Amino acid sequence: MRKFSVVIAGGGSTFTPGIVMMLLDNSERFPLKSLRLYDNDAERQATLGAALEILLKEQAPEVEFIYTTDPEIAFTDTDFCMAHIRVGKYAMREQDEKIPLKYGVIGQETCGPGGLAYGMRSITGMLEIIDYMEQYAPNAWMLNYSNPAAIVAEACRVLRPDSKVLNICDMPVGTLRRMSQIVGKQPKDLDVRYFGLNHFGWWTSVKDKEGHEYINQIRDYVAEHGYLTQVEVDTQHMDESWQATHKKAKDILEVDDRYLPNTYLKYYLFPDDEVAHSSCTYTRANEVMDGREKTVFDAARRIVETGTAVDSGFHIDSHASFIVDLARAIAFNTHERMVMIVENNGAIANFPDDAMVEVPCIVGSDGPEALAQGKIPMFHQALMHQQVTVEKLAVEAYVEGSYQKLWQALTMSKTIPSAKVAKELLDDLIEANKDFWPELK
Amino acid sequence: MRKFSVVIAGGGSTFTPGIVMMLLDNSERFPLKSLRLYDNDAERQATLGAALEILLKEQAPEVEFIYTTDPEIAFTDTDFCMAHIRVGKYAMREQDEKIPLKYGVIGQETCGPGGLAYGMRSITGMLEIIDYMEQYAPNAWMLNYSNPAAIVAEACRVLRPDSKVLNICDMPVGTLRRMSQIVGKQPKDLDVRYFGLNHFGWWTSVKDKEGHEYINQIRDYVAEHGYLTQVEVDTQHMDESWQATHKKAKDILEVDDRYLPNTYLKYYLFPDDEVAHSSCTYTRANEVMDGREKTVFDAARRIVETGTAVDSGFHIDSHASFIVDLARAIAFNTHERMVMIVENNGAIANFPDDAMVEVPCIVGSDGPEALAQGKIPMFHQALMHQQVTVEKLAVEAYVEGSYQKLWQALTMSKTIPSAKVAKELLDDLIEANKDFWPELK
Repeated sequence: MRKFSVVIAGGGSTFTPGIVMMLLDNSERFPLKSLRLYDNDAERQATLGAALEILLKEQAPEVEFIYTTDPEIAFTDTDFCMAHIRVGKYAMREQDEKIPLKYGVIGQETCGPGGLAYGMRSITGMLEIIDYMEQYAPNAWMLNYSNPAAIVAEACRVLRPDSKVLNICDMPVGTLRRMSQIVGKQPKDLDVRYFGLNHFGWWTSVKDKEGHEYINQIRDYVAEHGYLTQVEVDTQHMDESWQATHKKAKDILEVDDRYLPNTYLKYYLFPDDEVAHSSCTYTRANEVMDGREKTVFDAARRIVETGTAVDSGFHIDSHASFIVDLARAIAFNTHERMVMIVENNGAIANFPDDAMVEVPCIVGSDGPEALAQGKIPMFHQALMHQQVTVEKLAVEAYVEGSYQKLWQALTMSKTIPSAKVAKELLDDLIEANKDFWPELK
Repeated sequence: MRKFSVVIAGGGSTFTPGIVMMLLDNSERFPLKSLRLYDNDAERQATLGAALEILLKEQAPEVEFIYTTDPEIAFTDTDFCMAHIRVGKYAMREQDEKIPLKYGVIGQETCGPGGLAYGMRSITGMLEIIDYMEQYAPNAWMLNYSNPAAIVAEACRVLRPDSKVLNICDMPVGTLRRMSQIVGKQPKDLDVRYFGLNHFGWWTSVKDKEGHEYINQIRDYVAEHGYLTQVEVDTQHMDESWQATHKKAKDILEVDDRYLPNTYLKYYLFPDDEVAHSSCTYTRANEVMDGREKTVFDAARRIVETGTAVDSGFHIDSHASFIVDLARAIAFNTHERMVMIVENNGAIANFPDDAMVEVPCIVGSDGPEALAQGKIPMFHQALMHQQVTVEKLAVEAYVEGSYQKLWQALTMSKTIPSAKVAKELLDDLIEANKDFWPELK
């Protein structure tokens, strides 16, 4: 079988070891010729890179492995770039979360003002790696799952319309896994119909391969438990904040019981509940810095010290195997059915053509072909229209360097109570992001 | 000249004497054959009716005048029905204002939850008088300026699509008067371009008959003073709450400085400022009940006691003369240019065809022909889309008796912070409106 060269952009990410181990775990389906880590933070990447070098020598010595901050070395002759960059790292995520909370507004990585701030930072970084890819590996595809995916995808649409960038998010995959547990199936057994924006959508159908429809069964379950699956309902053993998120789907469903909601709609429909359960001094960024960040880097240092990755503490991120499905779809024209972020162009009939929407697609060698989802109800349409306009205004603000348009984006957001609060927030965010954002006039 | 028979629906309104005197003042342009007051509140109307009977005997004895609660007598053979009904009267307006304020949400007659509550009350009343008109005066036109105009207009579109109802609001007229003062012209000297929903729009052009454009001059003025005209800026002699409203246009303009805003956008863009300046115990309804309501009914009683309307205390509502312009446009095919509320059908190119929008129209014997306003920017489009969806969901909730759709309407509103608050508000509003709303399930 053909072998592939892959570069991971954001090599210093805490997610990188899990993704690398997932790739090795999938090597029969997707054999690697070379694997490269690329990051612009040499020190951070070096810790993970040195550990993964040991791991690959032990587990997959046939794979050429390097880590580098030189884009030419990283990208030349690769087939795929897997991109999970985080411009500003967790220190800036902490700001994204804490600044809004000062104003009683939700502080979250991808939704609301935090998502806008992160988006304004990410565009420059995304364009940079797209341009490297096109310069050094003109035939490569970028598999982009960097957040905030909605704004990043819109920026790609506007600023790099012809680039081979595939935008995908793991959330529809993750929720489908929960649905499959609810109905006693495997995710691969189920085909969905879905419409929305990234982190802002609804499932309209969940069928098995024989065409049996499970949506009513799942709806009845969610109306009682949210997306908490039985083992969680019984034992409540998972991470508390994610548990709350899955449970909250019950409340979202109550507002509209036609379709199954994406859990992140809670940030738009119940922002007051979210703020009430948030701490202004210790947010998700702090949890990650004190938790996953420490665990992963400690494990990496231990591997380097001991010289072996056996019992390393690195874990396969099996949830990320959709990235392999996507790469295979491109490489082998598999026509895999996947929920992706694409330009609408009629896929949602009563929604602007130029909106980046999240819908099921058939993915082949030329990229995704969206499956038409027809017309959507006006409640969903108007909520989506409001949110997509926030995202579009943010990208326009970036492109034009417009203070007023970013103010309008914040003012438009369902998470922000008024133009007055939007302006106060904006001025704080500009100050916090002065090393990352373009100058706004 | 042809003479007209007019029925005023809402005969017991405090606005009725001013409108009647305006009609008499315009009798050369619009001669009256008969004038009838209709109301379903006999007592309230009788006070005003008895006084106006005396007034008409003195000032226009040639006009047949009656007041009645019998729709057949009121409507038969009329040419025009002027409708300014208020279902639930000021006692319910007080509820519309005070219930939202309990939740820190704006309490206002036409915007936000108060407007929705009032809209749900008004639809039944509007349908009733439309049906009376069609039964007893099939050739008549209704000149409707009842609030909340946006919801009433959408309900007419959906439930009485073929009825001859003209929906118009005095706010574009009133603001144009201010603009004309700013540039030293008369309102009749100026033609505008305008797009929006009722109480939710923007002027894009204000030209004199020679084609000179004043929008930049007016914008510069509004950026400094709002729509306060010079005499007010200098003396601040007008009603305080209206003064604050006109002044606030300055802040609205700052959020988007392309076009001149309708002042009521403040309720959507600066709801926090509005709530901060509101009293939960004494609202506009209380002001009106203690002010205009007392003044007008005291004047009416004085006329009846003294048997004469000379120096009566009734004042011509000259601001309402646009109603005569509208009646004349229908009667004499004048092709008057007026801002009206009509079904979009492309008038705003990038907005749903079936939305009731407010745009300049040319009005002739067949009714209004909208002047196409082209495409609008996405900030305005998305704000309008959100709001028009609130209005449409409310009408669907009314038609279907749907609790969930009215909850969605409230959830969607820019004035309401979350689905949770929307539900609490809804349950309070249902209780307060139980004598007026259809049952919701």
